[in-house]
Amino acid sequence: MSEPSDPLTPTTGFAALVGYRIADWSWGRAAVELPVAAAHLNRSGILHGGVLTTLVDTACGYSGCFCDTPGRGRRAMTLQLNTQFLAPAQAGQRLTARAHTTGGGRSVFFADCTVHADDGTLIGRGDGVFKYAAGSGDPAGIPLARLPGS
Amino acid sequence: MSEPSDPLTPTTGFAALVGYRIADWSWGRAAVELPVAAAHLNRSGILHGGVLTTLVDTACGYSGCFCDTPGRGRRAMTLQLNTQFLAPAQAGQRLTARAHTTGGGRSVFFADCTVHADDGTLIGRGDGVFKYAAGSGDPAGIPLARLPGS
Amino acid sequence: MSEPSDPLTPTTGFAALVGYRIADWSWGRAAVELPVAAAHLNRSGILHGGVLTTLVDTACGYSGCFCDTPGRGRRAMTLQLNTQFLAPAQAGQRLTARAHTTGGGRSVFFADCTVHADDGTLIGRGDGVFKYAAGSGDPAGIPLARLPGS
Amino acid sequence: MSEPSDPLTPTTGFAALVGYRIADWSWGRAAVELPVAAAHLNRSGILHGGVLTTLVDTACGYSGCFCDTPGRGRRAMTLQLNTQFLAPAQAGQRLTARAHTTGGGRSVFFADCTVHADDGTLIGRGDGVFKYAAGSGDPAGIPLARLPGS
Repeated sequence: MSEPSDPLTPTTGFAALVGYRIADWSWGRAAVELPVAAAHLNRSGILHGGVLTTLVDTACGYSGCFCDTPGRGRRAMTLQLNTQFLAPAQAGQRLTARAHTTGGGRSVFFADCTVHADDGTLIGRGDGVFKYAAGSGDPAGIPLARLPGS
Repeated sequence: MSEPSDPLTPTTGFAALVGYRIADWSWGRAAVELPVAAAHLNRSGILHGGVLTTLVDTACGYSGCFCDTPGRGRRAMTLQLNTQFLAPAQAGQRLTARAHTTGGGRSVFFADCTVHADDGTLIGRGDGVFKYAAGSGDPAGIPLARLPGS
Repeated sequence: MSEPSDPLTPTTGFAALVGYRIADWSWGRAAVELPVAAAHLNRSGILHGGVLTTLVDTACGYSGCFCDTPGRGRRAMTLQLNTQFLAPAQAGQRLTARAHTTGGGRSVFFADCTVHADDGTLIGRGDGVFKYAAGSGDPAGIPLARLPGS
Repeated sequence: MSEPSDPLTPTTGFAALVGYRIADWSWGRAAVELPVAAAHLNRSGILHGGVLTTLVDTACGYSGCFCDTPGRGRRAMTLQLNTQFLAPAQAGQRLTARAHTTGGGRSVFFADCTVHADDGTLIGRGDGVFKYAAGSGDPAGIPLARLPGS
């Protein structure tokens, strides 16, 4: 569901399957958007918990991996993720997960995230601990060709 | 990816999109299986964190909602979910999330979960706090027609 | 270590042992202060993790239990607590944990907390899920004589 | 409250204030004991949440820092701690927190912990992510004189 003009969002893997989009990315910050569809619901007919945790994990992970050096990038792995479910979400709503880093250094970083619906309701929040892949603790990152998954 | 003879796994919603299967369900216990495919990976080429949290959330949630009274069922909502990522998982592996309840009563329950790959590797673990939907704190549940989402 | 003119802070139990003080309390908000002393350190000579979690638990728990009806009060039990340790703290620093509720209703509530040192450093943050004791989900609370522990 | 013949438990700092005792320690495992006294209770008259989190943090932290090389030791810092509160505990009970490592490597480790009362009741459980201090990722540790806090 990502737009053709969106260079940030992966067009393969779980990002494509779930249909979220990287809506914003800068130093220590990231936002992820998802229009909630029937494919995101649980058997009670509301947002599946795994969709909310996916948005929190993605936004938090991106928030610590921004890199604006041409031809270079950064990657991290989630060590731990915590999510609180504050209100149910329904199909038809657009969710935005906004994360920012709260601490860490060159080996690990911490991030915090809120998820709001387009009517302003706070759907959930979460936080996580992430470990930088080799070389990615450097804000200048590493050459794209050497990133994991390349 | 659920088998035709599988009456437990929802055939719509996020369960169908992700492709997990309820492999086992009994009092205070549940197991969820997923064959990892390319659609479950992140941009580093390993299992997306959101897939692991989805398995933990699903297995934990089911573990507290077993009901063997014909024509009746139980539902719960996730209040909070914690996941630790202990080892990466790759496409081609089959993951099994096994959860059991650890406490609670008629209003909330707690559950704990491990996720192993088919070679025995502990991929992750997690735990959560869940709130029963109205009437579902009773082990006998409520009529299926009155469950949320029916 | 609480001051004689402080009517909010318990003068017995773990509050007195640790020496924290309820510094502020209003609807959906609470602040807890602690001057860090040698008795709060671990064997590495920095703040023991259990002190930080104690401040987070206390501030979060109080934030959902404010009651300004004379002769009445509210109580809650922690269901789950998550804490992130963002920077070490040393003896001589004064820590302030500030919590606010983020959601919930008459049975459970959610709260979020930051802990800063007096030089402005963010020492940690955390969040929790709490369950109201019988009658305490009502903002008007219950008679003090009927509260747990009375 | 630690016994004179107990060489493992710190006799200063928060360990001495709270009164817990390192009851067992081996590769990847640790147990911490606490006889619950009035000084460990909250204003509701049951175990303060901060006492349970202190036991979980301590047992988990020790579990990853065993070292049997004479004259050497290991230290770690808590990055994140999660605790679930499964049953209340009262004064007079003896609690035992048993932790074991579940993963990690030379930079971080994961641990999991249960806390039981002496009547067998599961009071709580928890888990955490820890970062080794410089040199402590090596099982042989570093000279005691170079450990943080020495």
